[in-house]
Amino acid sequence: MPAQNRRSEKSRRAIYAAALALVGEVGYPRTTVEGIAARAGVGKQTIYRWWNSKADVLLEAFLDLTDGPEPPALPDTGDIAADLKAVLRATVDELTDPAFEIPARALTAEGVVNEEVGRIFVTRLLQPSLQLYVDRLRTAQEAGQIRPETDPRIALELFVSPLAQRWLQHTAPFSHEYTDTLVDYALHGLAPR
Amino acid sequence: MPAQNRRSEKSRRAIYAAALALVGEVGYPRTTVEGIAARAGVGKQTIYRWWNSKADVLLEAFLDLTDGPEPPALPDTGDIAADLKAVLRATVDELTDPAFEIPARALTAEGVVNEEVGRIFVTRLLQPSLQLYVDRLRTAQEAGQIRPETDPRIALELFVSPLAQRWLQHTAPFSHEYTDTLVDYALHGLAPR
Repeated sequence: MPAQNRRSEKSRRAIYAAALALVGEVGYPRTTVEGIAARAGVGKQTIYRWWNSKADVLLEAFLDLTDGPEPPALPDTGDIAADLKAVLRATVDELTDPAFEIPARALTAEGVVNEEVGRIFVTRLLQPSLQLYVDRLRTAQEAGQIRPETDPRIALELFVSPLAQRWLQHTAPFSHEYTDTLVDYALHGLAPR
Repeated sequence: MPAQNRRSEKSRRAIYAAALALVGEVGYPRTTVEGIAARAGVGKQTIYRWWNSKADVLLEAFLDLTDGPEPPALPDTGDIAADLKAVLRATVDELTDPAFEIPARALTAEGVVNEEVGRIFVTRLLQPSLQLYVDRLRTAQEAGQIRPETDPRIALELFVSPLAQRWLQHTAPFSHEYTDTLVDYALHGLAPR
């Protein structure tokens, strides 16, 4: 890597770290490009050379922090219950990692009251992850493990949304045992068979 | 009602309205007892005579706006599917009523980043409503319509949390048809029977 690119890469990492730290500390409205630049030790023109706005910087900082622009597919061992449980257990661990949790809460809180910010981040960060569940549920439908008439985009909410609500609203604690239970309830139903 | 009580009741209503409007406009951190008093046209001592803090005023304003301190039980026609669908349809309507939605979003957003505020409002406002689902699901268990081994506190999340997430995070639109589908999926399960 040429020296110029190494310097750019170092600045980029410093800017991502500064953006995530700042939004976690002061919230989205009070996070500014100037503030990110000062914290990263770069000029604000360096930021504007690469990004158009603080929303853009934060978006890419989150993509870098989590799965990158193209997150990997969900596991497919042929057992939909086992695969969903494994993914949700990993999600429980991610949601309680402060490096992710603090900035993610700040951004989500802003999205609750600012529909435009909410839609940008949901579309770019959350929906690609949800699409992986849609894809995995479709494969399970083809394998006869999910009813053929089920809409996978709604079905995934039966286990993803309860965990999201416990995390966001502190309605109750969550654990691997809890997400396993969600998967069992969702697959087999609450009514007797 | 004596004139003194009528005046008090009128002040109380003005204070509730001012508190809900203000939190919707400026958010929880910038809502102050002084601001509520000014908007309601009362002295701040009037507020402190009845409540200890802005959190207390807002809590009672929300209780007054929604169901009151003891919300009524869920309907029980003997058909758990029909009863859950009716309640969730009414919730869809409430969530899209601006008188509820705007202050509720402001308070929920604060709860996401401020665990103490989140817990106060969830415990006092949200949990009593969720308990009604627990009670109704228990009756359904006694009637043989829900598996006896199911934990009702987790079971309710299969239909309540998806609606909450669509509302809070704008992940997708919601409608009466959508909440009906959630109830059907939750009761009968995603896997073939």
